[in-house]
Amino acid sequence: MSAPEFTTYPHERLHEFCVRTFQHFGVPKRDARTAADVLIVADLRGIDSHGVARLHTYFEMLTLGRINPRCAPHVVRETLSTATVDGDNGLGLVVGPWANAVALDKAEEAGSGWVSVRNTNHYGIAGWYVLEALKRDLIGWSMTNTTKLVAPLWGAERMLGTNPIAIGFPGLEEPPIVIDLATCAAAYGKVEIALRHGTPIPEGWAIDREGRPTREPRAMIDGGAILPLGSERERGGHKGYCLALMVDVLSAVLSGANWGPFAPPFALRQEIPARSVGKGIGHFFGALRIDGFIDPLEFKRQIDDVVRTFRATKPAPGTNGPLLPGDPEREAEVVRRREGIPLVGPVVDDLRDIAKHTGIPFD
Amino acid sequence: MSAPEFTTYPHERLHEFCVRTFQHFGVPKRDARTAADVLIVADLRGIDSHGVARLHTYFEMLTLGRINPRCAPHVVRETLSTATVDGDNGLGLVVGPWANAVALDKAEEAGSGWVSVRNTNHYGIAGWYVLEALKRDLIGWSMTNTTKLVAPLWGAERMLGTNPIAIGFPGLEEPPIVIDLATCAAAYGKVEIALRHGTPIPEGWAIDREGRPTREPRAMIDGGAILPLGSERERGGHKGYCLALMVDVLSAVLSGANWGPFAPPFALRQEIPARSVGKGIGHFFGALRIDGFIDPLEFKRQIDDVVRTFRATKPAPGTNGPLLPGDPEREAEVVRRREGIPLVGPVVDDLRDIAKHTGIPFD
Repeated sequence: MSAPEFTTYPHERLHEFCVRTFQHFGVPKRDARTAADVLIVADLRGIDSHGVARLHTYFEMLTLGRINPRCAPHVVRETLSTATVDGDNGLGLVVGPWANAVALDKAEEAGSGWVSVRNTNHYGIAGWYVLEALKRDLIGWSMTNTTKLVAPLWGAERMLGTNPIAIGFPGLEEPPIVIDLATCAAAYGKVEIALRHGTPIPEGWAIDREGRPTREPRAMIDGGAILPLGSERERGGHKGYCLALMVDVLSAVLSGANWGPFAPPFALRQEIPARSVGKGIGHFFGALRIDGFIDPLEFKRQIDDVVRTFRATKPAPGTNGPLLPGDPEREAEVVRRREGIPLVGPVVDDLRDIAKHTGIPFD
Repeated sequence: MSAPEFTTYPHERLHEFCVRTFQHFGVPKRDARTAADVLIVADLRGIDSHGVARLHTYFEMLTLGRINPRCAPHVVRETLSTATVDGDNGLGLVVGPWANAVALDKAEEAGSGWVSVRNTNHYGIAGWYVLEALKRDLIGWSMTNTTKLVAPLWGAERMLGTNPIAIGFPGLEEPPIVIDLATCAAAYGKVEIALRHGTPIPEGWAIDREGRPTREPRAMIDGGAILPLGSERERGGHKGYCLALMVDVLSAVLSGANWGPFAPPFALRQEIPARSVGKGIGHFFGALRIDGFIDPLEFKRQIDDVVRTFRATKPAPGTNGPLLPGDPEREAEVVRRREGIPLVGPVVDDLRDIAKHTGIPFD
């Protein structure tokens, strides 16, 4: 018998391990808990690539002193409804929630709140910030730039990150609509999986180092690039490129962070860009007070109607019909809260490695 | 010799014809000029589908009394940085500019301004509103929902419009970055062109009335649908669907307009939806004051650097490298301001038909 592919852990236990790991580096307890929350919510919602699977990378960056464990994020400029936050080179998992809260507070005061953030690091799943807005009955937006991976349409090199956009709308009896999407054609993790399995990747995902379309995972990984959402000109690849650029400008140019190909690397294996054009990477948060536009009860009733109407769409052959954005993640969360979070072997090994170096017990 | 395919007209002459056509139906002169501006800017920028080619449709809607020529758009709810505008069932070409100006005014006062609009009609190119924001040195956003044409991923019927997103960022020495994209895989007009030419459409553009992928233009037009940006699940078709839904909620649910499949038709040939869930269609405008985030001079210098950096991207084989969003439109405008606007035969025939019915001279 071969070893099981997954080991399952209660989310509370993984959360505690994350908190203690962050605290080990001097992250204050409250910040450590927030950072762990963001990671574990990703795991609970089935977004395995952004949960504890990333803890080892944060661990490395903290070990090398490349992230400030005791950051003091602060507002450097503001109006009634806008602000720029400097994240003091802290964990994005700490700076992001702090800056997002500024946007939510401003929305409650002025009807809307918009915060651009510089001097920060990777902030987990974009959707976490939107869920925080929903807790306060606000429409929340969240974007971030990330390390370069994606080519602009007609480019032959990595110039943009996966640059996600998230937004959420509350329902009344129905669950909220929670949108969270990367502006590229496919996730890098899926190319890595194809490489491990020795299978080709679909057309439209990637180019090689010369800018030629490729279905070879290795050709993408070795100096190639992911294509923007839409892939080619004919299918609207220029649109995905435009969306990624929009996220980059709002997150990084507006705040004074590093934009485009100059976003600093998230992981140690990634090269450090030749130029620095700002501080750290950038995020962008927004919030809208619903009663600034319409009676919130009426809005939520209409969202319920939207959800039911779209669920009732005539299905395409071979499908069960359209999903509502947020459905898969919410369904995963129900199961994983009850049954635990399944981790693949390499992630368990990473956590054990952290345990070995820090002395924090892990199974 | 066959007749020339295009007839070219000075933009001023087409503008004047539009103004007089709108005035013929009682649209006040100032509103008629604004509406003509929006149409002619589309023609100048090379977006032929949204310029005078649409005048005949407005003409029909005004003739039948389905649009209010003397609309009085008004704010029905507001906070410091947000508002909902009721467009009084006016021309979108009049209501849109009025509501956009509310967003720009609010941004100047409160740092940002966000306006959702109901009871309005089709508003021309999304990019026009962003250009207005740029004139006032603001970052402008513009979205609108439109008559159903696009299927959600895994759906077999039209549930969403082409729902565009536009945003613009000013440069200093370089031209502004002007993004304006529909959230679907391809334009309906391109399917019509393929039908006329008897050529198949590319994979990933459309489904037929049963929800099956089709390359047959007629199968899309006769009860089929356009696919969202990303086309299939594998290439991120769920992302295009999410973006279209986002635009729909911000434009129509937030304002109290008709959302999704219930957006009223733009053209007479389109069916009237079975249900009404609000008033007219909806738009959404936003504006951000740059100095609410960063020194505007510093921002514009960085945008120049972004533009130059992306222009210097290594080109993909067989291309001249990535374009900057807004480049093709600006280049078209230089030529067309000088040389005039080329109109195809059917559009000229439409304008002559308007001339015949209204008595306004046209060549």
